[in-house]
Amino acid sequence: MKKGNLYLIPCTLGDSAVADVIPSLVNSVINSTDIYIVEEIKTARRFLKKAGILKPIDDLQFRTLNEHTDLNTVSNYLNEIVDGKNIGLLSEAGCPSVADPGSEIVKLAHKKNIKVIPLVGPSSILLALMASGFNGQNFAFNGYLPKDKTERINKIKELERLANIKKQSQIFIETPYRNMQLLDDLKYICSPATMLCVAVDITLNSEKIITASISDWKNYNSDINKRPTVFIIGT
Amino acid sequence: MKKGNLYLIPCTLGDSAVADVIPSLVNSVINSTDIYIVEEIKTARRFLKKAGILKPIDDLQFRTLNEHTDLNTVSNYLNEIVDGKNIGLLSEAGCPSVADPGSEIVKLAHKKNIKVIPLVGPSSILLALMASGFNGQNFAFNGYLPKDKTERINKIKELERLANIKKQSQIFIETPYRNMQLLDDLKYICSPATMLCVAVDITLNSEKIITASISDWKNYNSDINKRPTVFIIGT
Repeated sequence: MKKGNLYLIPCTLGDSAVADVIPSLVNSVINSTDIYIVEEIKTARRFLKKAGILKPIDDLQFRTLNEHTDLNTVSNYLNEIVDGKNIGLLSEAGCPSVADPGSEIVKLAHKKNIKVIPLVGPSSILLALMASGFNGQNFAFNGYLPKDKTERINKIKELERLANIKKQSQIFIETPYRNMQLLDDLKYICSPATMLCVAVDITLNSEKIITASISDWKNYNSDINKRPTVFIIGT
Repeated sequence: MKKGNLYLIPCTLGDSAVADVIPSLVNSVINSTDIYIVEEIKTARRFLKKAGILKPIDDLQFRTLNEHTDLNTVSNYLNEIVDGKNIGLLSEAGCPSVADPGSEIVKLAHKKNIKVIPLVGPSSILLALMASGFNGQNFAFNGYLPKDKTERINKIKELERLANIKKQSQIFIETPYRNMQLLDDLKYICSPATMLCVAVDITLNSEKIITASISDWKNYNSDINKRPTVFIIGT
């Protein structure tokens, strides 16, 4: 029997229209997939409805994968693929297994020789990089910065140094309620000539993407508190 | 008068159907945009037709941006935005200003306080990372490896070291006709336990994405000659 596939299914970044950020192929895939691995069932159900799934949601199977999941359970999550069924890995926001826990499932799929098919969707990291004007031939995504003050200062200095010396754009994020603090830290720690891109609410109506020098940022009041934001230091 | 926008318009990666990889918003944008900045006019016209542009192609304006473009000319490329017109920056394949020359235009837009709107589309780099099963919370894209043999060996060793020590997935590419040579180099230089993902023909029918250890790759004959390929070393 032909095995099923593991589809990596992207999700909208907040409240944007599905058709604005997700190609229609995703609609065909969700209509041929009954089993989903998700971070949270409630938001997954909501997304699948919004994305036009035709089958009643209660007929679908959901398996959760988040920080509370026992990794022993996960080893059974892909069993039905051997029987020819497709399984979908859904992200909470954006692309699965980029800046989220999904990569463990993908690893398991490769071990079992299961075909992994990634589908196109919005990635705030990539969209911010495109719109920053910074070097897109060499870049790094660093996830969250450390919380400890000294480590955080050192990390920011290291990112600034890498951006300047290696011409490698340095992308990072912060828990949204700490965004203003991070922006203040960057203004205080980085050299006035360093270029910073701040990309807020990507793909939403309130989207705002600004690239300016640290000295210009000092004269600019930007309200990024509690809004999803991607930061990039680059050249 | 309200200024126009600079839209960053993604393109298919080779011969896939537009609806499979590009959201329908792109269709609305190209039908409200008459001026395009492109690497090569011929392929841009072909893509716009395939993406469903309604206006006759001969009524559009094209400006080229590639290695032959005089940078003094480029400074005028966004002039009509001040008069309220939209301008589209198109990539040859995938997302503009990631691994292509577009970022100079985006930089110029930020200098002129022009709104930059990135649109969702296929990025072989991001899709390969998603499907690799490697760490997606920390990764770097390194572009092309050096051609000089000693520099190349050193670079591969450095990428392997960064992937292991920093748990930072290392993404890189090669000119397609040298893919087999690079794969051989990786088999020869990297440690047998190092994990390598090779992602070929992403989004096409012939797509193949395999993650395995270097020792497994040694027993595996993979024909990646002249096919667009993304390589990732990761954990």
